[in-house]
Amino acid sequence: MEAQAFLVEGRKNVLEVLNSSFETILVVGTESFFSQNELPWHRWNCAVANEEKIAVLGTFKTNEHALAVVRMAPELPLVPEKDESLIALDDVRDPGNLGTIARIADWYGIRKIVASPTSAEWYNPRTIAASMGSFTRILAWYTDLETFLRQQSGTTVYGTFLEGEDIHRVRFSCPCILLFGNESNGIHPGLMTRVHHRIMIPKYGGAESLNVAIAAAVVCDNLRRQQ
Amino acid sequence: MEAQAFLVEGRKNVLEVLNSSFETILVVGTESFFSQNELPWHRWNCAVANEEKIAVLGTFKTNEHALAVVRMAPELPLVPEKDESLIALDDVRDPGNLGTIARIADWYGIRKIVASPTSAEWYNPRTIAASMGSFTRILAWYTDLETFLRQQSGTTVYGTFLEGEDIHRVRFSCPCILLFGNESNGIHPGLMTRVHHRIMIPKYGGAESLNVAIAAAVVCDNLRRQQ
Repeated sequence: MEAQAFLVEGRKNVLEVLNSSFETILVVGTESFFSQNELPWHRWNCAVANEEKIAVLGTFKTNEHALAVVRMAPELPLVPEKDESLIALDDVRDPGNLGTIARIADWYGIRKIVASPTSAEWYNPRTIAASMGSFTRILAWYTDLETFLRQQSGTTVYGTFLEGEDIHRVRFSCPCILLFGNESNGIHPGLMTRVHHRIMIPKYGGAESLNVAIAAAVVCDNLRRQQ
Repeated sequence: MEAQAFLVEGRKNVLEVLNSSFETILVVGTESFFSQNELPWHRWNCAVANEEKIAVLGTFKTNEHALAVVRMAPELPLVPEKDESLIALDDVRDPGNLGTIARIADWYGIRKIVASPTSAEWYNPRTIAASMGSFTRILAWYTDLETFLRQQSGTTVYGTFLEGEDIHRVRFSCPCILLFGNESNGIHPGLMTRVHHRIMIPKYGGAESLNVAIAAAVVCDNLRRQQ
């Protein structure tokens, strides 16, 4: 059985996880990391190592000042609260995109992400790194999106496409679900019937598309400016 | 002397560069890449290779179907046209961020990026890859930003900070320059006197900051929706 723990790398991410409700099993840091951050270090198993050793233990090549081994939170079915909007991800494969979307959701006050089982792993080190600590505040749940969306009656599902209603003109109804699709193929055809409104980010230049995390940020910003 | 050429990797990027005014010195592709794309291949030096060989030639580990060796365009001083808005980058160090910002600029119809000499390299393979072909449509110029901004009289410079006027309320005056700063430290204090308006993306949740490319997309979207 795989150990139910994950790796958190980098000073900011480690400090965020120590301040969260996650159970930290081990902290490895440089001497300066421990001395510069006044925390109740006796609470955790701590080990001092130099940057080279930390880089070897971690998954990133760049030297880092800290890493932590953290217990995964139990994955609970995600139930939106009344008036709570959320983000749904259909097959977003890149962990960097997933982590960046978590950071964006956290910035825009969206606390839950529901993802198809084919999406990138929440506890992948690149997801964690890109989230810049936001993984501690966002709940993620992997489930069949068709079933999940069917169950959210009364909640408007907005799907982002290259063609749809200009988001600068959309009047968002809340709570809502913002659905984003795969990096190359967009939203899966099997989910089309679950989308109530097709929306698009208007284009003024020559690029063929926007990265999915960029699209998520622009849509969240347009949603929030109306509230 | 270093060869004044750069590497373009991946099917989409190679097809974009072949359709641009850049001079392509060599195209390496799989058999299927050449057969699936009907182009006047006789115009270029072409070599067939399998994916493994292309991966060895390139800088990315994932197998790719094509790469090209392309002549760098001469770097010319960037002169904004009348009524032309542009993006200025102060010490944006990550090539992935630079390439993503180029793609965003291209989507939002901004054609020129001026960057401080300490910013990531335009022709870095990660910049090129992240731009998804947009590097062929965007002009970049590296220069001392303080001097450059001082010369743009009559153009409003908007700087993005964690504190400033809420972009949802800003009335952008055009043409303008959108200035973004370093990933960790933001805009350099020496440039503060060149910023006419400090703007900020309002925050609704717990994240400390947004990635610089995400911020650039949200600001561009807010600029364009007014026009």
